[in-house]
Formats: sequence, structure tokens, C-alpha cells
Amino acid sequence: MQKKGSRALYIGRFQPFHKGHLKALYWILERENEIIIGIGSAQFSHTLKNPFTLGERIEMIYSVLKQENLLTRAVIVGIPDTDNQHSIWVSLVKSFSPRFEKVYTNDPLSRQLFEENNIPTSGIPFFKRDIYKATKIRELMISDQPWEDLVPQPVAKIIKEINGVERLKKIAGSLTPQQY
Amino acid sequence: MQKKGSRALYIGRFQPFHKGHLKALYWILERENEIIIGIGSAQFSHTLKNPFTLGERIEMIYSVLKQENLLTRAVIVGIPDTDNQHSIWVSLVKSFSPRFEKVYTNDPLSRQLFEENNIPTSGIPFFKRDIYKATKIRELMISDQPWEDLVPQPVAKIIKEINGVERLKKIAGSLTPQQY
Amino acid sequence: MQKKGSRALYIGRFQPFHKGHLKALYWILERENEIIIGIGSAQFSHTLKNPFTLGERIEMIYSVLKQENLLTRAVIVGIPDTDNQHSIWVSLVKSFSPRFEKVYTNDPLSRQLFEENNIPTSGIPFFKRDIYKATKIRELMISDQPWEDLVPQPVAKIIKEINGVERLKKIAGSLTPQQY
Amino acid sequence: MQKKGSRALYIGRFQPFHKGHLKALYWILERENEIIIGIGSAQFSHTLKNPFTLGERIEMIYSVLKQENLLTRAVIVGIPDTDNQHSIWVSLVKSFSPRFEKVYTNDPLSRQLFEENNIPTSGIPFFKRDIYKATKIRELMISDQPWEDLVPQPVAKIIKEINGVERLKKIAGSLTPQQY
Amino acid sequence: MQKKGSRALYIGRFQPFHKGHLKALYWILERENEIIIGIGSAQFSHTLKNPFTLGERIEMIYSVLKQENLLTRAVIVGIPDTDNQHSIWVSLVKSFSPRFEKVYTNDPLSRQLFEENNIPTSGIPFFKRDIYKATKIRELMISDQPWEDLVPQPVAKIIKEINGVERLKKIAGSLTPQQY
Amino acid sequence: MQKKGSRALYIGRFQPFHKGHLKALYWILERENEIIIGIGSAQFSHTLKNPFTLGERIEMIYSVLKQENLLTRAVIVGIPDTDNQHSIWVSLVKSFSPRFEKVYTNDPLSRQLFEENNIPTSGIPFFKRDIYKATKIRELMISDQPWEDLVPQPVAKIIKEINGVERLKKIAGSLTPQQY
Repeated sequence: MQKKGSRALYIGRFQPFHKGHLKALYWILERENEIIIGIGSAQFSHTLKNPFTLGERIEMIYSVLKQENLLTRAVIVGIPDTDNQHSIWVSLVKSFSPRFEKVYTNDPLSRQLFEENNIPTSGIPFFKRDIYKATKIRELMISDQPWEDLVPQPVAKIIKEINGVERLKKIAGSLTPQQY
Repeated sequence: MQKKGSRALYIGRFQPFHKGHLKALYWILERENEIIIGIGSAQFSHTLKNPFTLGERIEMIYSVLKQENLLTRAVIVGIPDTDNQHSIWVSLVKSFSPRFEKVYTNDPLSRQLFEENNIPTSGIPFFKRDIYKATKIRELMISDQPWEDLVPQPVAKIIKEINGVERLKKIAGSLTPQQY
Repeated sequence: MQKKGSRALYIGRFQPFHKGHLKALYWILERENEIIIGIGSAQFSHTLKNPFTLGERIEMIYSVLKQENLLTRAVIVGIPDTDNQHSIWVSLVKSFSPRFEKVYTNDPLSRQLFEENNIPTSGIPFFKRDIYKATKIRELMISDQPWEDLVPQPVAKIIKEINGVERLKKIAGSLTPQQY
Repeated sequence: MQKKGSRALYIGRFQPFHKGHLKALYWILERENEIIIGIGSAQFSHTLKNPFTLGERIEMIYSVLKQENLLTRAVIVGIPDTDNQHSIWVSLVKSFSPRFEKVYTNDPLSRQLFEENNIPTSGIPFFKRDIYKATKIRELMISDQPWEDLVPQPVAKIIKEINGVERLKKIAGSLTPQQY
Repeated sequence: MQKKGSRALYIGRFQPFHKGHLKALYWILERENEIIIGIGSAQFSHTLKNPFTLGERIEMIYSVLKQENLLTRAVIVGIPDTDNQHSIWVSLVKSFSPRFEKVYTNDPLSRQLFEENNIPTSGIPFFKRDIYKATKIRELMISDQPWEDLVPQPVAKIIKEINGVERLKKIAGSLTPQQY
Repeated sequence: MQKKGSRALYIGRFQPFHKGHLKALYWILERENEIIIGIGSAQFSHTLKNPFTLGERIEMIYSVLKQENLLTRAVIVGIPDTDNQHSIWVSLVKSFSPRFEKVYTNDPLSRQLFEENNIPTSGIPFFKRDIYKATKIRELMISDQPWEDLVPQPVAKIIKEINGVERLKKIAGSLTPQQY
């Protein structure tokens, strides 16, 4: 367990931010004083894998942090993808984020890239991985099944306000054989 | 049916422009006064899905418009892809095109993006979809089957002049397991 | 003088398209059968030097070609800038444009780039250069002096419809010492 | 004065965030319920005009918001520059930011771009403009004059920790005639 | 067989450079006086298909050329990918490389692109294709099987120094179903 | 003085490579075992400041290294510019270059960027700075004065073969007030 005074980066795409992410956040905050929530693939949206814009994801996470009284310990940043030019990604992260000493993520490639740059990394235990999983939540949305209980309440509220489920269904429709 | 004086955008990739596209063009011109033909994925070429350059596609469509005496009612523009950064695509379209009030396309994602930007969209009826289909025409070219009758005559002429079929076959050959 | 059947590229930024450009167009059409009007710096707009978007410039030039009954001999294409990566610019032009045999422009760098690629170029005589000059027309707009007579009538109409003069004045205001 | 429940965007480059920016923040918060602080030219750093990275600027502003107990009413986002491709910038801002109804800035071009997109804008009164001005603060740093009192205390602390003044002096040294 | 005094370009990705590549090099040097080794997909790394950076690949190939006493006849250059914007790739190659008269490669698309630009190309005979093949070497690395004998000795040495096999395994681990 | 076995990076734009650069090369080789010659602003060409392409500069330097029998101790790499996104430049350099322990350059910004990344740097003594200076050599070329003696003989030969002086003059002509 890291000593207090520390600041760590927690990276995900948060499409959308769900209750598993929130549990992970609390788990990291037991180990670190401050947390930077790094929203990856920042520039993408309106795809099956990345339906929500960076701004929408910031709005969702900010509203959760506010409700949970975590704003004094967590700050949100957007981290663009560099396609497959992975060798510059860590320096991009470092320049887009407040300083940090450690990175929390379960993605092997991200961990490899940070370790090659001498930045320590750690995995995060999964919380009910079979149900709290963004891929699954997006599938529930597309197939008109209930998904609201899998995300914090402010996230569900925002997704409804922006007609997020309708958007996701339209995107899914685009993946059928091309029409023009 | 839209009132006269109107101008609409018709978006496609036109790889290549075939007789189904031409029928769609006439169908839209019954409903609109002027049409902007937006050639999507403008920057791509020499792939199986996008064999022809923007310039070659402009030349093909311009030659058809000339033959059909449609040049006073139709103008051609190129529209680059933004990869998966879809949130900026509509503003890119708007800045690369003359003003328009409506968009005609059958692609659900494109329609979703325009609708989110408060621009009305409409689908287009297909015309003998089983035969007038760019994917199929490219397959005919690769397998040395007759394709010329599926495109307007000036399009066939240009494809021959630029050795388009030979190019497509070479590209198809590149997709076999990598050779170096 | 080039033989008939030929097609040439005429490159400019057309910010805006003025009567000097129109005269140049007629001068080239005496020498060539078809002309491609290449609108350079396609991606830029809302600057002092490039106030109008590509789409607005296409709309202006198309409306002039229509009025002059030149649509069967002239086609419009947009040509993006490659910043200072000049070595790829000619291949970009070639892929964004119908085929051409010759380039008309007065810019020495553009001529050098085409000549290095074995494409012949030619200058264009200026027509009343002291008054038909885009830089000067933009200055007149900013200083509230009459400019309408220097551009073809459909161009003036469009600039008014899009509040182009107001835009240019706002942009000029941005160039005073930075305010935040 | 705008009604409560509103959310507005306040755009600047914050190189660095100074006491004039903090006063502007309070002035806007009298008029709006929530504020989004948009850090412009996000991708740039290590230049005379933009010495600090986005991450450093986020860290500075976050520490000020924390000290001022403003974290429940203000969220920070980074906004990349689009060079001179201004026509897509507003859609980029919208996709990188939570939803907002109004924009506060003193930059005429930014106001023009938002107004063309039907988003209302407002200027901000300057607070002791002769002394609270980022350009001047950077000049003081370069010439070894006192600057600490012009920025909130947490900002001064961070600039010292990252050796920001030394960096700025090195950058200034780079602008003498080129040495290789 | 080409006459002496000639210079040719040999293009590959060299992920990694193996004994088949070295044999190809000697085969080309029987036909040409000088060879330019063009390392394609220069900007990519840390993927299954492109695990090594351009710099690592240059270091590998340079060390082989040194051992083989070939430095006076071979020079190394990096060639970035242009995604699917293939129409500008040849001009990019030409501007990133010393002058050459011919291209050696077995990739049909590359050959097509050079031929369209009037640059002659030639295939290269494969040498024990079933064992000297980069895809297979990377698979051996991932599955902990012996691979060292398939590459020149200096290449094996560098891959070990940079922990290349460990990197490749981590990357392979990233391709299991996404974990956040 | 660094111990043998070391490898260092020497960065410049080499527009063109002159005798001062060659002296610097020898001076560094007294201190290091191997040298990587990093050609900066790799993607630019055909400007007053960067007239020659990366490929032309590689050809010039390679021919000098060959003549000086330095090929076993020096390797050439191209390093693209990142505009003003300086925070990622060092990681780009590291991924485009073989491994190195130290950087030689006289540019304060480059030194600052490497030092911030914990890579030691060193300046290089100038050799007859008043005459061996690329800016001056380009001015001599433009004004038709003798410049050949200021560069190694193989460099002069290549510049003549590619008509480099004529190119530079054409570029200089482009900088007179814009002509369209």
C-alpha cells in the first residue's frame, strides 16, 4: 500500500462509467491520496465501442464525483489515442495530466508502455466482472434490456438526456452491410 | 416533398458511380431544386473498398452530369473521413460544401450525426439493389466478369483509361497473406 | 497555344473570387478545352488571409460559372494545404483532381513543385492588378469601403447572405493584442 | 443576468492562470450556476506563448479551485487548437466539453465562431488589466523580476516545483538567431 | 540484370529483420550497385504485427550491415505509413529516401503504386519461406519456442537487450477480450 | 570526456550539411564511440529555411560519411517536427533512433526538452561560425555568390545534380507579395 500524499492515474475509456468503475475508484483511493481519472480514446465517439464523446463522459464522471463527495480527491483528464503509434503515448499522457507516481489499469499494453518508461503500474481487482462491464451494458442498451441499475444514477440520467440509447442503436444499425 | 428553391446534399462514396446512383440522383432532383453530390472518404484510394481517388471519382461524376445535362442543377464536392472522430464530421461537411437544407443518405450513422446537429435527413429508395451495388461491381471487376453495363457509359470509359480494373486486381492480390 | 482536347488546372485561393480571376479563366479557356479550378488552402477559413470556407468558395465560383454558361467547360475541386511538407503536395493535387496536362498559376513555388514533377506550368497575365486583387478587396471590406463592383455579382450576393464582411471585421479585431 | 441552473464555458489559455482569471471566474459564477473552464491550445507547451503543458495547467487550476472551495461549481477541460481550420473548432469544443448554454471570452474570433453556430457569447470585464496579464507575467519571469504575487499561491508553488521559470528562460534563449 | 552504378530501394517492415531478408539483400546487391533499405510502417510499434520501433529496427539492421561489411553499399531510411491515403505514399517515399531507379518488393499494392508513378519494380525470390518469415518468428517468440537462429546474431542480441520477447508477450496479452 | 562504448545523438537540420557540421562530427567522435546523426524537421522541404528533402539530406550526409570512412561509427536517422507540441518530441526522437546516452546540440529548447526527460546534453564548439553557417550558405546560393567551398565536395555535387540552387531561388521568389 502506497503512502499518503501520493497521486495516481486511473485509466479507462468509461463507455459508460459504471458501478464497477466506481468500486475501482474507491479501491484506489484507499491506497492513494489523490486520483487522476484519465479518459482514454478521448477523440472518438459515435462508434459501437466508443458511443459517447469525451465531453459526455466528463459530464457523467463529474456528476458521480460530485454526488460521492470525491471532487477534492479526484480530477478528470482526457487522453487521446495515438492509433498504433504507441511509442509516444506515455509522453502524451504525461503532458495531458497532472503529475502522478503510479498508474492503475488492467490493460497489459498500457502497463507495458508505462513500465518501459519506468512508471510503476498496478492491476485493479474486478468487481462482479460478469455484470459490471461496459461492453455488456452497451449490448443491453442495443437490445432494449434494462441497464440503468448497472451505472451510478447520475450517469443514467445523463444518458437519457442525450438520447444515448437511441444513438447506440443507430450506430449498431450502421454496421449491417453497407447501404450505398 | 420539399418546395422548389431548395438545395440538398447527397452523400456516397461512389466507388464507382453506377446506374443506381444516377437513378437516386434523378429521384432527389424531383424533390429538390439543386443537389450537392458529396463524395465521402475523399482522401482514400487504392483499397478494395475505395479503389478510385477523389479526382477520378469527380471526373467520372462530372462526365455523367455533363452527358445528362445536369450540370446546372448539381455540384460535386469531396468530403474527407475523420476516422472515428465522428463528432466533428458534420461541421467538416458543412465547411466543405455549399449551403444545404437537407441530407439524403441511407447510412444510419450519417443520418444520426446530421440529426444530432438539427439537419433533417431522408433515406433514398434503392433501384434494383441486387445488381446496382458498388461492392458487387468491384467483385465483378476482380473476377473478370462483365460490369460495364452497370455504370453510365462515361464512367466505364474513364475506368478503362486509367486501367482501373487492373489496379483493383493488384489491390486484391495484396490481401493474400503478407509477403515480406 | 495548346491544342483543343486539352485539360488544364488553374490554382488559386479565391478569397474571394473576383473579376480578375474571371478574366484569367476566360484567358485560359482560349488556350484549353477544359479547365479545373483548384481551390487551394481548402481546409482554412476564418482568418484574415482565408476568410471563407471551401464550401463558400465553391458556392461562389459555381454560381459564377452558371451565370457565364461555363459549367460544361469548368469543374471545381478543393486542394488542401500540406503546411510546409511541400514534397507531397503535387501528388495530393493529382489525386484530388481530374487528370490534367498543364498548370496555370503565378506562384513560383507551385510552379517549381509541378516542374520538379515533370508537369508543365504557365503564368497568367494580370488584369488591372492594382484593383482586382483579393488582398485589396478584403482590406476594402474591413474598412467599410465599396468592394462589390470588384467581384462578379453572384459572389457579392453570397458574401452578403453569409455576412462575410461582418465576419472579416471580427477576425480583424482578433488580431489586436491578445486579450486573455 | 442568466438564470440559475445554467452552465457556461469560460475559455482561455491560462499560461499561467493568474489572479485576473480568478476574478473573472467569480464574476461569471455570479451569473451562472456552473462553469466549465476550457483550457485552449491544449496540445502546445514549451513555447514563449505557451510554456506550460495542459497537465500542468490543469494541476494549477485544480489546486486553485480546491483552495477556493469551487470544485462543486467548476470543471476543467482541455481544448486542442485546430491550427487555422477554424470551421471545425466549435464542434471540437462541444465534443470535448460537458454541455453548456453560453460562452464567456474576450477573443473576437472565438465569439464569432460560436455566434455562427448559434451559441450566445459574452465578454468579461478586465480586472487591473495592466498588471494581471499572462504575457506580462511571462516577461517578468524571463527577466528575473517578481511575479509570484500576480498568481494565486498554489499556482506559484507548482511553477516552482516544475522549474517553470527556468524552462521559460531556456525557451526564450532558443529564440535568438538559430545556432546550428 | 541492371547495370552497375545503379541504386535501388528495398522495402519491408523488418519486424524483425531475419535471415531471409539478409539473403534478399545479397540477391539485390548482385543486381544493383547500391541499396536503400526502406523500413515501412515507420511510426508504428508495440503491436503484434509491428512490435519494434523504427529506432530499434534501424539499430538491428545497422548492426547487421556493419557485421557483413555492407555499410558502403547500403543505407537505411524510415518510411511512414499513410493509412489508406495510398495516393501520396510514393511521393512520401521519394522525399524520405535518396534517389533510386527501381524498387524491390513482393507486395502487390506497393508495386502497383510505384508502377502508376512510372517507377519500375521487381519481386524478390523467397528463401526458405516456410521458416524465414517474420510472422512466424513473432509467433515463436510469443509461444516460448526457439527463434534466435532465424535472425542474424546481432539482431538476436538487440532483441534480448531491449526485452523484445517480453514486450511481444505483453502485447499479445492485450488482445484477449478487453479488461476495463 | 565520455568513456568508449558510448553512443550519442547529434541533432541538426543540415540545410545543407556544411564543413562546420563535419568538424562538429569529428569533435563528437573524439568523445563518443558511435554517433547517430539526427536530421530534424524531417518532413519539411522547399522552404527558404528547409530547402532540401529528408532524402536529399540523407544522400548528402551518407556520401560524406562514405568519403570520410566514418560509416562504421555513424548512422543517419530522420526526426520529424511536432510543430509546437514539444512535450512529445523527445519520445518521438527516442522511438525513431537507435539507443543513445547523450545528446549534442546547441539549441537551448532541444537541450531543455532532453534534460526534462533526464537525458544529458552538451553544446558543441562552433567552427568559424561566421562562415560555416547554413543560413549564410543559403543566402549565398540565392544571390549567386560562391558557396561550394563551404560544404564537403560530395554535398556540392548532389546539390548541383538536383538543381538545388535553382530551387532555392524559385522559393525565394515565392516570398514576394502574393500573386494571385
